[in-house]
Amino acid sequence: MKQSQLFTKTRKEAPKDEVAKNAELLIRAGFIHKEMAGVYSMLPLGFRVLNKIIGVIRKEMNAIGGQEMSLTALQDKNLWEATNRWDDGIVDIWFKTKLKNEAELGLGFTHEEPLTALMTEYVDSYRDLPIYAYQFQTKFRNETRAKSGIMRGREFLMKDLYSFSKDEKEHEEFYEKAKKAYGNIFNEVGIGDRTYVTFASGGSFSKYSHEFQTLTEAGEDTIFVSEEKKIAINKEVLNDEVLGDLGLDKSSLVEKKAVEVGNIFSLGTRFSESLNLKYKDETGSEKFVIMGSYGIGSGRLMGTVAEILSDEKGLVWPMSIAPFHIHLILLNDKENKASKAADEFYVELARKGIEVLYDDRDLRAGEKFADSDLIGIPVRVVISEKTIAENVVEVKDRKTGEVHKVSQEEFIRTFGFK
Amino acid sequence: MKQSQLFTKTRKEAPKDEVAKNAELLIRAGFIHKEMAGVYSMLPLGFRVLNKIIGVIRKEMNAIGGQEMSLTALQDKNLWEATNRWDDGIVDIWFKTKLKNEAELGLGFTHEEPLTALMTEYVDSYRDLPIYAYQFQTKFRNETRAKSGIMRGREFLMKDLYSFSKDEKEHEEFYEKAKKAYGNIFNEVGIGDRTYVTFASGGSFSKYSHEFQTLTEAGEDTIFVSEEKKIAINKEVLNDEVLGDLGLDKSSLVEKKAVEVGNIFSLGTRFSESLNLKYKDETGSEKFVIMGSYGIGSGRLMGTVAEILSDEKGLVWPMSIAPFHIHLILLNDKENKASKAADEFYVELARKGIEVLYDDRDLRAGEKFADSDLIGIPVRVVISEKTIAENVVEVKDRKTGEVHKVSQEEFIRTFGFK
Repeated sequence: MKQSQLFTKTRKEAPKDEVAKNAELLIRAGFIHKEMAGVYSMLPLGFRVLNKIIGVIRKEMNAIGGQEMSLTALQDKNLWEATNRWDDGIVDIWFKTKLKNEAELGLGFTHEEPLTALMTEYVDSYRDLPIYAYQFQTKFRNETRAKSGIMRGREFLMKDLYSFSKDEKEHEEFYEKAKKAYGNIFNEVGIGDRTYVTFASGGSFSKYSHEFQTLTEAGEDTIFVSEEKKIAINKEVLNDEVLGDLGLDKSSLVEKKAVEVGNIFSLGTRFSESLNLKYKDETGSEKFVIMGSYGIGSGRLMGTVAEILSDEKGLVWPMSIAPFHIHLILLNDKENKASKAADEFYVELARKGIEVLYDDRDLRAGEKFADSDLIGIPVRVVISEKTIAENVVEVKDRKTGEVHKVSQEEFIRTFGFK
Repeated sequence: MKQSQLFTKTRKEAPKDEVAKNAELLIRAGFIHKEMAGVYSMLPLGFRVLNKIIGVIRKEMNAIGGQEMSLTALQDKNLWEATNRWDDGIVDIWFKTKLKNEAELGLGFTHEEPLTALMTEYVDSYRDLPIYAYQFQTKFRNETRAKSGIMRGREFLMKDLYSFSKDEKEHEEFYEKAKKAYGNIFNEVGIGDRTYVTFASGGSFSKYSHEFQTLTEAGEDTIFVSEEKKIAINKEVLNDEVLGDLGLDKSSLVEKKAVEVGNIFSLGTRFSESLNLKYKDETGSEKFVIMGSYGIGSGRLMGTVAEILSDEKGLVWPMSIAPFHIHLILLNDKENKASKAADEFYVELARKGIEVLYDDRDLRAGEKFADSDLIGIPVRVVISEKTIAENVVEVKDRKTGEVHKVSQEEFIRTFGFK
C-alpha cells in the first residue's frame, strides 16, 4: 500500500502515561492506539501483524487436528457457579454486567465452562472423542494493574484450544503434540531461542502445567533456567521435589525475568465433573471426559516480539509476521525520474505477491529513513536518482543494517520470502 | 474435512425456547450454539460461513479504499459523555461494567466516538483526508427483546466503516461508492434480488439515511416497496414530502416486512464537532471533518441468508458463502470398494483447492442424505458401489434438487466455483 494513503503517521512521543516499551514503540510507529490502561486498539499496521500471528498459530492448531470456532464474550452465571468460578472472591478479574431484567452476566476471561457445557450436547460415545476445538477470541480481565502495554491487557485477543479425550493416554499424546506445536509457533515468530518450556503449578489435577516463558526484563515472571536442558522452572514451584523430578541441581540454574507467552494445562476431570460431560466407553459404562487447555495471547505475543526484537531505532519484525515484506522508499528528484521508476517497481512487486509499503510521500530522506527504522519492516529498498543512474536498487536489512545494491531483476529473483 | 472428525452433529430439534427459524435451522444443523437469548457461539460450520461473509465484505471495503483495523469493546465514558450518548436515558442499549476502582466503562454498541477521537491524533491538514477506516468487531447491545435468532443479537459481529471527508462533495462521492459496494455484497451472498435501498430517517444532519432492507416475514421492519424503481421507503418516514422527493405515488407502493441488513448514514459534523476533529484547509483555516458511517451486521447477514434461502429440508447456502463447496457422500459396500474410491476422490478434490465435507461416517444412506439437506452445502456428490460400477459420480444440486451423473474427471473439469 502507498504510505501516503495510510492514515497513521509516526509520532515523536507516546502518551505520557505509557510506561511499557512495547506499547511506546507500537504507538509511536502507529501500530496501536491506547484507549485506556490495558486497552489498545489495533491500527492498520498493527492489525496486519496481529493477523499474521493468527495465521502462524492457526496453521499449527489445524495441523494437530484443531477445529476453529468462536464462543461469545457474554457469559451465563449458572455455568460458572457450577464450577465455583463465579464468585469475585474466588476469581478476582471478572468484568460483570447486567441484562435489563437485572440478570448478571460475565465477560469471559477464559472459556472452559461454556465449551464444556456445549460439548455435553455433542459427546455421547467414545466414538465422539477426541475433540480439539479452538478459537481466537477477545478475553476481558479486570486487572488491577495494567502497565505492561499489550503484554498484559484488560481486553485482548487470545487463542485458546481445549482438548477432550477419552483417557489419560490419549490426553498425554495430544498434550505432547500441542507442546511441540507451541515450540514451532515461537520459533516461527522469532523468539524461539529465548523461550523456555517452564514447569509451573499444575493445579489440583496434575503435578505440573507447562508455561512457555520468553526471557525479557519486561516480563512479570521469575524463572530459573537450565541452559543445558533448555527448560526452566517457575519460581513459584521451585523446590527440592521439582528439582528432583527434573534431575536438576539448583546451582546450575540461572534466575531470569520472563513473560509467559503460552501455557498448556492438564485439567483432568475438573470441568467435566462439574458440568457433567460424560461419554460411554466400549463396554457401555459412563466416564468423565479428560480435558486440557492450551492458551496463547496473540496480542501479548505481538507485544513480546516488539519488546524483544526492537532496537534503539525502533521495531524490528521478523519476515513471518511483518506488516509488509518490503518498505519501498522513494527519494524523488526534480524530474520525477525516481518517482516513475518506484511506481513501476511497486506495481511489479505487488504483482509477484510481495507485500509492499511504498513510501511515496513528499518528505526528506532523513525523515523517511527514520520512519522506516521505527516501523521495522525487515527489508528496506531505496529508489533514487542515484540508484537509477547505477541501474540498481539499494537494499538494507533492518535487523543487521547491512546494505547492498542489486538490479531490480536480481532483487525480485532472489527475494523469496526470507 | 472428514465428517467423522467434525465434532458437531445434526439434531432433530432446536432448544424449546428458540422461536426464530434462522436460529432453529442453524442450531439443528450444528452451525451455531445458543448461549442465552440473543447470544450465539459459532461452531465450526457456522464459523466457516461467517468467515466467507467477512471475506465478501472485506473485498468490497478494500476496493473502495477502506483500511482495516480493530477498535476495542471496552469504552471510555468520557468520550461518550462528550457526544451526549452515555446516559442510559438517551441510549437504552448499553451494557456497562466497572474497573476495580469503580470507574464505569461501556461495551461498544457502535464506534463513532472512539474512532473520531483517535483520528484527532492523525488528522491535521486537508492532505490527511479523506480517510476510510473499517473493522469487523463485536458489538454489544442490551436489547430488551432478542427473539430473532442471529438476526438480532445482544452480542454480534459487525462490519462498520467510517468515512472522514473534507467537504460534502468528497463525502457524497464516497457515499455513492459505498452504496454500490453494499449492493455488490448483497448480490454476492445471494439476496440481492430481494434487497432494497430504503429511504429512512437521516437524523439531524441529513435528510435521509439509506437502509438496505431484505424482504422476509421474519423481519422486524415495515417498508413500502416500489418494484418499478427498485427502491423502498421505511414506514417510519413515509409521508407526502418523502413521496414527493422520490417522485413516487403511494398507491404504487407495496407494504412488506423486511430486515435491515445494512445501513449507511451521513453524520455531517455531529461527532467531529463534539470531539473536536478539525483539519486545516488549503488556506490554513480550520474546518470540522465531515463523517459518514456504513454498517453491515455480518452475523445478521448470515441469519438472513439462512432464513430466506432455506427450504423445508434445511439450509441452502449459495456457493459464495457455503461452509464447503461440496458435500461428498460415501455409501459404503461390504467390500469397501466405494470407501476406497471416495477416499481417493476426496484427496483429489482437496488438491484442486475445492473445499469438501466428506461424509465418511458409518450411517444409513437416508440419514446421510437428510443431514446433507439440512446442512445445505450447494453440491452433493454421492459415491457408492452402483456409481463405481457405472464409472460415474452422482451429483445433486441442493437448491434445485436436480440430479445428474458424470465421470469424476468431467466433474472436476466442469466444477469451477459455480
